[in-house]
Amino acid sequence: MTLETTLAAIGPADERAMAAARDLQGRLTKPAGSLGVLEELSVRLAGLAGHCPPPMPEPAAIAVFAGDHGVHAQGVTPWPQEVTAQMVANFVAGGATINAFARQVGASIMVVDVGVRIPLHGGDNLLEANVRRGTRDLAVTAAMTEDEARSALEVGLSVAAALIEGGAKCLLTGDMGIANTTPAAALVAAFTGVTAAGATGRGTGVDDATLARKVEVVSQALTLHRPDKSHPLATLAALGGLEHAALAGFILGAAAHRVPVIIDGVIAASAAVVAAAFAPDAVIAMIAGHRSAEPGASVALAHLGLTPLLDLGMRLGEGTGAALALPLVAGAVRVLHEVATFDAAGVSEK
Amino acid sequence: MTLETTLAAIGPADERAMAAARDLQGRLTKPAGSLGVLEELSVRLAGLAGHCPPPMPEPAAIAVFAGDHGVHAQGVTPWPQEVTAQMVANFVAGGATINAFARQVGASIMVVDVGVRIPLHGGDNLLEANVRRGTRDLAVTAAMTEDEARSALEVGLSVAAALIEGGAKCLLTGDMGIANTTPAAALVAAFTGVTAAGATGRGTGVDDATLARKVEVVSQALTLHRPDKSHPLATLAALGGLEHAALAGFILGAAAHRVPVIIDGVIAASAAVVAAAFAPDAVIAMIAGHRSAEPGASVALAHLGLTPLLDLGMRLGEGTGAALALPLVAGAVRVLHEVATFDAAGVSEK
Repeated sequence: MTLETTLAAIGPADERAMAAARDLQGRLTKPAGSLGVLEELSVRLAGLAGHCPPPMPEPAAIAVFAGDHGVHAQGVTPWPQEVTAQMVANFVAGGATINAFARQVGASIMVVDVGVRIPLHGGDNLLEANVRRGTRDLAVTAAMTEDEARSALEVGLSVAAALIEGGAKCLLTGDMGIANTTPAAALVAAFTGVTAAGATGRGTGVDDATLARKVEVVSQALTLHRPDKSHPLATLAALGGLEHAALAGFILGAAAHRVPVIIDGVIAASAAVVAAAFAPDAVIAMIAGHRSAEPGASVALAHLGLTPLLDLGMRLGEGTGAALALPLVAGAVRVLHEVATFDAAGVSEK
Repeated sequence: MTLETTLAAIGPADERAMAAARDLQGRLTKPAGSLGVLEELSVRLAGLAGHCPPPMPEPAAIAVFAGDHGVHAQGVTPWPQEVTAQMVANFVAGGATINAFARQVGASIMVVDVGVRIPLHGGDNLLEANVRRGTRDLAVTAAMTEDEARSALEVGLSVAAALIEGGAKCLLTGDMGIANTTPAAALVAAFTGVTAAGATGRGTGVDDATLARKVEVVSQALTLHRPDKSHPLATLAALGGLEHAALAGFILGAAAHRVPVIIDGVIAASAAVVAAAFAPDAVIAMIAGHRSAEPGASVALAHLGLTPLLDLGMRLGEGTGAALALPLVAGAVRVLHEVATFDAAGVSEK
């Protein structure tokens, strides 16, 4: 699928399926509303699927998109750039936190090199789809050309399609890229209108001086590129990262196939904002896995109207917050499939 | 084990194991602190186990303690009392929400009749341990004698011991009992010092008039019984329910065996407050699964110094909030077992 055919395939929620899910929730053997946000989630997923109950979100597949960033040169992070490739090797070897969490929740992991600077050694679950060996420095020039951004978006579309073709009933967003919270902050600021300071956080642990520099870099980039959110591809190309672009495509691909996609932290949330700029109805496929400690994530989720399922003070990325949310999503759907009604169970109502 | 031998077996956290867990968290391939409250949880569980890493909390076992309440006569709930027995039958048949969630997270369920009014039909996973066919009305007399309260506590101790003997590495609290949020509120008020209004909520959905009556009933009971929190057995007997007493014993049993116990909602949280009154060190075994919508749950967790893992607006009970928290607990521990260190993975540090 191209970007254009994907966007054309994205449509609104099915109100009839949502009404059926609301009705069913009211007949199950529990007080109405007693599952809180999980009931609302089950209704949204019925609207996405177009029937009630919606399919169980299992098997689930995590895609971890990795890229490097020219803006690393501005000193926005204490971590050396080679850690991106080193962590990709760690994912492929199964030794990272996302691997542990994926095993815990029974999800598969595909690692996608969409923009890592250093050529990587292969592995069974490593997909080589490198569009460019790292972006340009967004503080001084456009991070990507529009063609590069489109190519990265289409990598995400292809990965979503391949995972769904392979049987995945739920997609989870993962990311790796040293310095990637800086382009995420720039994208959030550009698409939501919040200031650079409001969108920018400490990422994987920067000190006060580095945070101030990071805010200044984002602010300069907004001044330099004058992003116009009504042109999402140009804005994404100017300010984004290759993994942000691929994630936006991955999210759009999920929405086009009407498969739910669990949004992880600030990188995925910024990509979700990009996806919604391309296709506002894509939001119906999005589930906010958690509230990252990064302020830009909360800004992005509020912009999208999404309430996160978890709030554990996490700020790791990789897809970790999405993975931990998967059992909650599955539990919400499972209730519609398996819980007895008052009538069937012979339980009196109030 | 008797109550006394159990209390004698409960001791403090192992500081050396906690230090080892903190050190290990700092060497794993992720930014220090980036897993937020899950890192703190892994450290607490190392302190409970007395070594690092602590054992994985799987297999996990849910015990759902069921009882009826004389205070139902005061009109504190719109649900008829026979729903307790009907829901027990639903648990045994596998049709309730806790059954769906237990299947989702891979936990077993044992249903324990510790105080249901109506004799129950058996089932493979139904334990008959009925101490009394429902409590007396706490608004007019002591809900239980001290001997009855002790017997119910010892049912909980026995169930904890049996499940741990059977291989459970983590216990989860469940409950069923129409009207049981009223004794829970009374226990929370008695042990924490908060007012009746501060401890009492809408339970499974009462209207304003019923809520006002419920607050008045709790307030009257506190005036009538003048509970002394330095006498936890007498206070429990005066104000509690048979399932609350059994849950307090279940929690104390977990702590004595140094096995973690995930606290569900307001019923379990009130029982946890009772358990802590018997043995303050029991708190080290407790994990707050979620923040129930019931105000008494938040009061109880604050009193215990526990931060809930989930906050989904749930108010169902049955153990549902504990079950959904299990994958988070398992994920927190799994990180210590499986994630590579910077040295081992060849990843550069900042």
